[in-house]
Amino acid sequence: MENEQILKTQGLPQGFVWGAVKAGIKVSGNADVAVAVAAKGANGAAMFTKNQVVAAPVTVGRRHMASTGGRVSVVLVNAGNANCATGQPGVDACVQTCVAAAERFHCIFDEVFPSSTGIIGVPFPAEKVLAVLPELEQVMGATPEHADSFAQAIMTTDTKMKVARASVDVDGVEVRIFGVAKGAGMIHPQLGGPVGPAHATMLVYLFSDIAAESEQLRGLLEPAVERSFNSISIDGDTSTNDTVLLLASGASGVKLDARTQEPFANALKLVCGSLAYQIVDDGEGVGHVVTLHITGARTEAEAKQIAKAIAHSPLCKTAWSSADPNWGRLLAAAGYSGVAFDPALVNITIGAQPVFELGVRSAAFQKEAAHAEMQARDYTITIDLGLGEAECRFLTCDLTEEYVRINADYSS
Amino acid sequence: MENEQILKTQGLPQGFVWGAVKAGIKVSGNADVAVAVAAKGANGAAMFTKNQVVAAPVTVGRRHMASTGGRVSVVLVNAGNANCATGQPGVDACVQTCVAAAERFHCIFDEVFPSSTGIIGVPFPAEKVLAVLPELEQVMGATPEHADSFAQAIMTTDTKMKVARASVDVDGVEVRIFGVAKGAGMIHPQLGGPVGPAHATMLVYLFSDIAAESEQLRGLLEPAVERSFNSISIDGDTSTNDTVLLLASGASGVKLDARTQEPFANALKLVCGSLAYQIVDDGEGVGHVVTLHITGARTEAEAKQIAKAIAHSPLCKTAWSSADPNWGRLLAAAGYSGVAFDPALVNITIGAQPVFELGVRSAAFQKEAAHAEMQARDYTITIDLGLGEAECRFLTCDLTEEYVRINADYSS
Repeated sequence: MENEQILKTQGLPQGFVWGAVKAGIKVSGNADVAVAVAAKGANGAAMFTKNQVVAAPVTVGRRHMASTGGRVSVVLVNAGNANCATGQPGVDACVQTCVAAAERFHCIFDEVFPSSTGIIGVPFPAEKVLAVLPELEQVMGATPEHADSFAQAIMTTDTKMKVARASVDVDGVEVRIFGVAKGAGMIHPQLGGPVGPAHATMLVYLFSDIAAESEQLRGLLEPAVERSFNSISIDGDTSTNDTVLLLASGASGVKLDARTQEPFANALKLVCGSLAYQIVDDGEGVGHVVTLHITGARTEAEAKQIAKAIAHSPLCKTAWSSADPNWGRLLAAAGYSGVAFDPALVNITIGAQPVFELGVRSAAFQKEAAHAEMQARDYTITIDLGLGEAECRFLTCDLTEEYVRINADYSS
Repeated sequence: MENEQILKTQGLPQGFVWGAVKAGIKVSGNADVAVAVAAKGANGAAMFTKNQVVAAPVTVGRRHMASTGGRVSVVLVNAGNANCATGQPGVDACVQTCVAAAERFHCIFDEVFPSSTGIIGVPFPAEKVLAVLPELEQVMGATPEHADSFAQAIMTTDTKMKVARASVDVDGVEVRIFGVAKGAGMIHPQLGGPVGPAHATMLVYLFSDIAAESEQLRGLLEPAVERSFNSISIDGDTSTNDTVLLLASGASGVKLDARTQEPFANALKLVCGSLAYQIVDDGEGVGHVVTLHITGARTEAEAKQIAKAIAHSPLCKTAWSSADPNWGRLLAAAGYSGVAFDPALVNITIGAQPVFELGVRSAAFQKEAAHAEMQARDYTITIDLGLGEAECRFLTCDLTEEYVRINADYSS
């Protein structure tokens, strides 16, 4: 099974319908309430932000996943208002929408999984969500257009819809995964298990038609998230609403078992990887997507710690915006990451260009050639620490004047 | 003794001469090598960056302070080249300038305290420093103009010279402190003791004519630095060269003892506080100087941890640039700081305007009034956690398009 084949499938997983309508929550007037319904229910696993300040839907979603043991019939998402820092009234408003959606779509209230994204701290207009539930029921369907309408409605500052598809052939039956994501700013997901504080502005929904228990899904989701959504950063701001939800409708009739587990896990990783890349690529004001490949570390955790220090350094990120091979800033950020290393053992390359070798500027350093590498939309910076065998790949981006403009203007 | 009186003194400490010349290290062609000489020597205490990657002058300065027990005769500073990530050749070049300066100014080589600031990773042009030592000797003097020439020569992206003066009257004798600082970007000093890795682009020299042992000076310097230079951040990038040096020439004849310690320590704190403020106020592209006053914390360290998360959040900083009272971003950043707290106990005010009270938007919130408070050049955001009695004040600034322009253009 080749990766390319997995991603090329156009089919959607069976057992779900999608829809979206305009409720007047987004200032733009675009569609802003989306729903996905599994008529026969689905088993699910969710991961939420580790931020201690969490939005009401994260509080409610966590409780629902706990009370149902991971059973989900309806995913109800709105964009335009994050329902965060809204206190008990915000939680009450969220519960109210879940109860109404359960009645409308014929399930128990705690089988509704709610999500919100948008401005923080503004009272949540539950009445706008309640008012559009009948219309939502009318517009739902199982075509790619329906699925795309879901993906578009959950966008906020995103400029592009983010979807990825993969399938696995099991004895002639196609088991499918359809992933949807939104997120362009406040992106530095730190997703943890269902217990503990949670919250963020990256929303990811992974719909599949495999038959699996929630416990099995959790086991697949965590490693897939660790090397995708937990390995990206746009601005280092971990949101209060970040949510990743994996659902399995079982409608393909294929069970997740010893034989299907590995190909399904690989397909899931591909979908997560593709969505994570799309998020960074559509980051607010992004001019360059930079992969930080930290090698020669003692542990993967230390490699990631160094990658994050660099990915969050305004000086590194502004240098990337002008394609400036200022490796001194890379080294300085690594130096304050908290990971012990010796600059005299370090090698740095930008794309194929050596810039720093064993403690000093590389003898082969050619500023213009390095500058040229950095003019690409997408390139890799490799930092070898010379300490061990562990490594990581972390995806991030430059910091531009456009990012500042977008976030100065995104007014409360 | 009132603070204002302390700061109003124009006199310079006795026992020092200052001077600066153009050596061709700065691209601008401005004066870039500065010297301060204590003809009879001075006792000193130094603190360096905790960054693990340190510039050659930090490595050398640390060794010199250790070998002399804190004795300093010459402070030799250049701007335009940080002599960092330059390997053993960089250290050799630094030592070479110290040896030459010692010969020129008649002291032992390890009584020369070297500093460098500027671009990282470019081989250090020691020959340019060596060439100007005779001229430096000619231009040195003890007038305010000489002292200012020192302050101007150490500037890099600074737009203003940063100096502060204070004095303490002891039985009719004026004991003086003259402080000089540079720093406008890569500012998030994390200064530690003389042992351990060190490095940064904030340079601070505190000249005084009190008579004191190095051990006494260290005892005064650390608390003064903790609440000034270690409580500011412009961009969160901890430099590889940060250095604070306190010198005491003894020329006033007044000893640091049980009677003089407190007023001298207060004067030192005032000078450090003034310089720290000047650094943030002249931060790259800064439009607003924001004091984060975190109260009701369990410990001062936790208060500072929350202040730093907010001070390093691009989303908080961009909101400040447009005077947007987006307190949701403040709360979200506090939420990922790692400090445990309950949003339902939190109160936030911007200037005099309540914006968030006990978990929800304040009933008294007036967006326009809060926006008006934030149009001031300088204002305070108070976040009360409702957990305890500890607090901190942390000084930071907004993130502007101008910051991005400056740092994208500051080419290697």
